[in-house]
Amino acid sequence: MPQFLNSKDADFEARFVDLLSMKREDSPEVDGIVADIIADVRARGDAAVIELTSKFDRLDLTPDTLRYTTDEIDAECAKVSDADRAALELAADRIRAYHARQIPDDQRWTDETGAELGWRWSAVSAAGLYVPGGLASYPSSVLMNAIPAKVAGVERLAITVPTPDGIANPLVLLAARIAGVDEIYRIGGAQAVAALAYGTETIAPVDKITGPGNAFVAAAKRRVFGKVGIDMIAGPSEILVIADGDNDPDWLALDLMSQAEHDESAQSLLITTDEVFGRKVAQAVDERLETLERREIAGASWRDFGAVIAVADLDEAAALSNRIAPEHLELCVADPEALSSKCIHAGAIFLGQWTPEAIGDYVGGPNHVLPTARSARFSSGLSVMDFLKRTTLARMTPAALSEIGPAAETLAISESLEAHGLSVRARLDALND
Amino acid sequence: MPQFLNSKDADFEARFVDLLSMKREDSPEVDGIVADIIADVRARGDAAVIELTSKFDRLDLTPDTLRYTTDEIDAECAKVSDADRAALELAADRIRAYHARQIPDDQRWTDETGAELGWRWSAVSAAGLYVPGGLASYPSSVLMNAIPAKVAGVERLAITVPTPDGIANPLVLLAARIAGVDEIYRIGGAQAVAALAYGTETIAPVDKITGPGNAFVAAAKRRVFGKVGIDMIAGPSEILVIADGDNDPDWLALDLMSQAEHDESAQSLLITTDEVFGRKVAQAVDERLETLERREIAGASWRDFGAVIAVADLDEAAALSNRIAPEHLELCVADPEALSSKCIHAGAIFLGQWTPEAIGDYVGGPNHVLPTARSARFSSGLSVMDFLKRTTLARMTPAALSEIGPAAETLAISESLEAHGLSVRARLDALND
Repeated sequence: MPQFLNSKDADFEARFVDLLSMKREDSPEVDGIVADIIADVRARGDAAVIELTSKFDRLDLTPDTLRYTTDEIDAECAKVSDADRAALELAADRIRAYHARQIPDDQRWTDETGAELGWRWSAVSAAGLYVPGGLASYPSSVLMNAIPAKVAGVERLAITVPTPDGIANPLVLLAARIAGVDEIYRIGGAQAVAALAYGTETIAPVDKITGPGNAFVAAAKRRVFGKVGIDMIAGPSEILVIADGDNDPDWLALDLMSQAEHDESAQSLLITTDEVFGRKVAQAVDERLETLERREIAGASWRDFGAVIAVADLDEAAALSNRIAPEHLELCVADPEALSSKCIHAGAIFLGQWTPEAIGDYVGGPNHVLPTARSARFSSGLSVMDFLKRTTLARMTPAALSEIGPAAETLAISESLEAHGLSVRARLDALND
Repeated sequence: MPQFLNSKDADFEARFVDLLSMKREDSPEVDGIVADIIADVRARGDAAVIELTSKFDRLDLTPDTLRYTTDEIDAECAKVSDADRAALELAADRIRAYHARQIPDDQRWTDETGAELGWRWSAVSAAGLYVPGGLASYPSSVLMNAIPAKVAGVERLAITVPTPDGIANPLVLLAARIAGVDEIYRIGGAQAVAALAYGTETIAPVDKITGPGNAFVAAAKRRVFGKVGIDMIAGPSEILVIADGDNDPDWLALDLMSQAEHDESAQSLLITTDEVFGRKVAQAVDERLETLERREIAGASWRDFGAVIAVADLDEAAALSNRIAPEHLELCVADPEALSSKCIHAGAIFLGQWTPEAIGDYVGGPNHVLPTARSARFSSGLSVMDFLKRTTLARMTPAALSEIGPAAETLAISESLEAHGLSVRARLDALND
């Protein structure tokens, strides 16, 4: 059973704060191990990567077999069914179309002093994408990470995917091919992150690393940050559904379970203006939990972290939603647009009952890599922007420098930065001669 | 004397790689101390902040005097000269005008299936800006951090600035006022970062913390990252000047010194197509170093990390510049636009000999918080975007769901995420009934 809260209850605020501050993740202490692995890869390159892959993935590689050949990729891709291939291609097309609209414009203008100002966007030259192996080896995540990089114009996109016991996921390789990935390495763990960040004899270093992973991968990404860019460190998945009573309880039960089935640490929340309806959804969840394949995981998540919250009206719902800052926010109400405009902090919003969150995981178009753990208060999902950087541009004319240079000199003097001031003064003096 | 390199020399590549990989920063091991300070502030709030401020800043505060009152700010601002005030206002106006152009548009469209897609930008609700005390207490940095936040629409902007022995910098307070800062606290160090991130009885927590600081502040920002957003952890400043022989050696010497005077760890590099001119610039630096107020600092930086690199042509210069990925790039050549288009990785570019880098530090308009240590390969300077986040939006219609839902179901099944697939299937079945 999940928790049931009602905003009218005297202890509501305390219970809501508890819900917000629940610690859902164990952080195993792996930082020391990861530091050693990174140092080893930096020192010994391919040899270290090969040794660690043999140890952790029970897979014996050589410098020549670290990377998949085109023939090997062809062979794996040929195993994919036509239906799966068509679904991946439909998803890729929609993700590409959505992200293509994110490419920002360069700007350039001349201001009233005659100074030319602006900025210019350019792509990261090389990016690396970490793809988990085993159960969490999701082809959809390959599309969601790789397509924005390619849309941004990243020239060289490498992925690493561990293949324990040499068993590959054909769908992952096909997704990589569809997304335009340039290099695929059959390695994983902290050693893969280290190889991407620092390079080895076989693997050229990249400038940015994205993609999900276990505690070792997350710790490695934190450690190489600065040497390369990284994306966010994602926590367990979350959904908040805000619903009135005019919904099918089973639909919402399935939406809640589609987060809960990811992970025992996932959190599924329902806020409803209709307390009786809330109970019906909980009942529908219980029924679905009898048969779901992942009922152990989904059930544990729902029991430990799930909640049904009854509120007086949708304004109250929006206010609570903004405190939660959910990764996924589903608005199953009569006027989802109106409610959406009040829900400021959320990674992704799904409007109306015909938009189950799972659509956004696969084929909607928006990215499914989204801020977790209340970080939607200050951060955004993955986008083309993560693979671009901005260079600012300024060009003074003698007239512009005459007009604004003296203020720069004044401020430099006030900050005791004499050479700053003199670099302007020398030019101003030349103009006055 | 700086290093002199020539790309024709047999040992050039090795020496250039050495120059690129020079370790310029000592990272003192303060992480343990910082962890204790953060834990103390979380546990004891104001009391801890007050105790630490007494210890480190020799300043005795109470919960009532942590924050500057309006009268106190008035009194400090009144000490600023008219010339300094006018210079700050000119700078603020120009920074505001530049950053106002960075506000991105929301997007919303209907695709060929009838699905509505898009995204919406919103501001971080509350931001905190760390301002260093003492020597590095720069009013220009207050403008550069605070104005983008306010342009983005941040409702509550708090700054912390340590005031050792109670001595304030009136220019910092005036800059904060001009920029529209809402709250000013006279605290600093890791305790200030902890107070901003977690809140105390007196200081409400913020969602994002930006601004430069010493090793303790940097370590604290790393530690609170995740709880709040942070900006980059900036390293020592850098400039690369690319020049042909048709320049005044003294101007470029001053430009190089305007970085070197920041910090003994700063790096000033000159790449020139005219080796003889390069020697003249080095000679001009030596002459300036005889009289500069900060000659000890600037001289040490130039001696230890400075370099003059002679190249055959500007294409070679651009290629080296892209490997350096400089924070500041000054292009003192006949056609700076043409050269700029080849210099892909740089935080800020200053075009032509009338644009000394110092203009960008104060009054140019672009931000002076820029990526250091080669991170311009994958990151950008501070901007309005740092105080905004994007929420993606999707709304399916029954027809759109019918068209793309089956592909989502297929992919969910292929990833063994049954509830994902069922959440789509339940709706598709309702449509088919």
